[in-house]
Amino acid sequence: MFTGLLIVQKYGGSSVADPEKIKSVARRVAESAAQGHRVVVVVSAMGKTTDSLVALASAITPTPDPREMDMLLATGEQVTIGLLAMALQSIGYPACSFTGSQVGLITDEVHTKARIRRISAERIGAALAAGKIVVVAGFQGMTEAGEITTLGRGGSDLTGVALAAALKADVCEIFTDVDGVYTADPNVVPEARKLARVSYDEMLEMASLGAKVLQSRSVEFAKKYGVPVHVRSTFKPDPGTLVTREDDSMEEVVVTGITHDRGQAKVSILRVPDRPGIAAQVFGALGAQSIVVDMIVQNISRDGFTDISFTLPRADRARAEQVLAIVAKDIGAAGVAADDRVAKISVIGVGMRSHAGVAAQIFAILSKDGINIQMISTSEIAVSCVIEDKYTELAVRALHDAFDLAREPRG
Amino acid sequence: MFTGLLIVQKYGGSSVADPEKIKSVARRVAESAAQGHRVVVVVSAMGKTTDSLVALASAITPTPDPREMDMLLATGEQVTIGLLAMALQSIGYPACSFTGSQVGLITDEVHTKARIRRISAERIGAALAAGKIVVVAGFQGMTEAGEITTLGRGGSDLTGVALAAALKADVCEIFTDVDGVYTADPNVVPEARKLARVSYDEMLEMASLGAKVLQSRSVEFAKKYGVPVHVRSTFKPDPGTLVTREDDSMEEVVVTGITHDRGQAKVSILRVPDRPGIAAQVFGALGAQSIVVDMIVQNISRDGFTDISFTLPRADRARAEQVLAIVAKDIGAAGVAADDRVAKISVIGVGMRSHAGVAAQIFAILSKDGINIQMISTSEIAVSCVIEDKYTELAVRALHDAFDLAREPRG
Repeated sequence: MFTGLLIVQKYGGSSVADPEKIKSVARRVAESAAQGHRVVVVVSAMGKTTDSLVALASAITPTPDPREMDMLLATGEQVTIGLLAMALQSIGYPACSFTGSQVGLITDEVHTKARIRRISAERIGAALAAGKIVVVAGFQGMTEAGEITTLGRGGSDLTGVALAAALKADVCEIFTDVDGVYTADPNVVPEARKLARVSYDEMLEMASLGAKVLQSRSVEFAKKYGVPVHVRSTFKPDPGTLVTREDDSMEEVVVTGITHDRGQAKVSILRVPDRPGIAAQVFGALGAQSIVVDMIVQNISRDGFTDISFTLPRADRARAEQVLAIVAKDIGAAGVAADDRVAKISVIGVGMRSHAGVAAQIFAILSKDGINIQMISTSEIAVSCVIEDKYTELAVRALHDAFDLAREPRG
Repeated sequence: MFTGLLIVQKYGGSSVADPEKIKSVARRVAESAAQGHRVVVVVSAMGKTTDSLVALASAITPTPDPREMDMLLATGEQVTIGLLAMALQSIGYPACSFTGSQVGLITDEVHTKARIRRISAERIGAALAAGKIVVVAGFQGMTEAGEITTLGRGGSDLTGVALAAALKADVCEIFTDVDGVYTADPNVVPEARKLARVSYDEMLEMASLGAKVLQSRSVEFAKKYGVPVHVRSTFKPDPGTLVTREDDSMEEVVVTGITHDRGQAKVSILRVPDRPGIAAQVFGALGAQSIVVDMIVQNISRDGFTDISFTLPRADRARAEQVLAIVAKDIGAAGVAADDRVAKISVIGVGMRSHAGVAAQIFAILSKDGINIQMISTSEIAVSCVIEDKYTELAVRALHDAFDLAREPRG
């Protein structure tokens, strides 16, 4: 006897932007149900709904209360679930929608960026057992005390993965407007190849390094609970990329992909007296302004002084310079320098763990094209270099080529 | 020591149609709070939001599932409560919003027109005790099983009255775009007078007879639990009309007001054989089509035949004629006649209970102006006549004048 899978599917806001698109998502969901699978669908708010709600709040007050903001924002997904359930019913598939509160998605009390504590899967289980497609509002949850919360950016992905974990689903399918994860951005490298599989760790590096496919929190959650995540296109039937546990075959490939990020700026504090507590003072001051720093590089000191460099989102540069001008004075540094015209290039692959010399190879490839490296940072499975912005495409193509990523690996 | 009242205020969709209007409602609510009262505010969806949501559902399917419709519609009020709470906070008044589910407004399972079973006032009580203004989503509730329901037309008024009953509030203030209940429609009778008080029963007759101020269900609920309801203007500070228990002074006034309804049609089944079960067959057939009949008149039979006449909403006339054509054949009646050009004029007053001859007076007043009466129906506190549509204004003015309603009563 064929027993279907239990599948969680997540569709983002652009996939459900209007009634026609919602009907087309319904047909896509119905296909999976028709194949005998049990399906739980997680959806975001329609198109730009969340932006409109935020604009309404701004028209009331520049500083809306986070609890009331969540009350307001949670309506966006609630509209979509009602409509999608109707659309499924209208093509003959029994369906039933639930809000985050109704499925017992319990979070902490941090409004607008709550963290999931647990999910009580009973109500969904009962609806599935009754033969229904279950439609769940993404992005939202409820505190123990019954307050409505939202999960912050990328929250619907997180709802999908968390539901898949709670329900012990066979897979969480993330439908998006790209059809998978590539060895490099196909806009930059035309011969970039779609990866059939990547490991959670590689995906995490990619997510935090500029590939916008999946939010890091969702990948972390999927890794923690071992949820296989399938990133695929809303508009094409082809399989996408499976994000999954590492296995031996993955380690045979040294480099999996190249990412680049042009959204950052580089800031340096010059001639900092090299004594304990200085770094804490610098990054404490930035943290207090909610400025999130990415790469940090500090070299050995010379004559008791050192330079501290780091990258941060370009939009935060001006604010960071203001904060740091004061800090620099306090700590007796020579000054602050900032540069927007930089890009971060990263080479990622779990195989790096067991292969020495990848970093040296990278530096050689870049230098061969006359590309100067301004900052270097490495992790177990990634090497990142900050270079001058104008060399971005050249660098990505050179690395993609040198590591032979267009060629399908044996496996 | 001055102890404030506990007041429930309800604002309809046109009062909260945009952010500016929501801010102005917030100022109005704040005034009451500033006077030392504890305030619970019930609000509807903004302006035409509910219509837009219905249109979205129609774009998906012509027959949306009622459960999913409620899921969709409930978002309208949830948007308003978030925004109003923000607006109150932004002018320095602690506030907190709750959905129908969150305040434990428990209903039956009849989606899109659920009836309230009970309200657990604990959560509101705790928020009031913490010094907050409580903002509650009107129109919505939750079943015992946790399903979202809506209360149907006029549902937000009902939420207001039901909350006032559950909280034992001193008054439920219904803010609307009219400033109270008048002795007649001021558009028809310029000297019509605003009533300071009307009884629940008079208001019920008015609500069901065409005065659109308050839905009958809310008045019934208010009567059952003895909730004083104050109908007043959103835009003017003056007191409006208090709907309350009857007292002796009310009975001294024979006629309280005149209403008229132009939204009905008159239908007659002609030469119906006068035998038991015929009326049940006629009105059973209409009820099966969800056609709600208002006045019904059947006279004594003559030669074993009688005519049955009744009024119904004009929009249902064509459908009723179709249904009745079949029924008429079945029961051996001569045929069906229908007329749109009718109006129903009603004279209302609790004093009629103890004053004989009011009906005769009414007929005399109408006949004096040459107005023919087509149907007559009486209750304990109202006399209604169906007349030709074109005499509506003339009839209302003549009655208003004859019963001297422009003059303030003694007492």
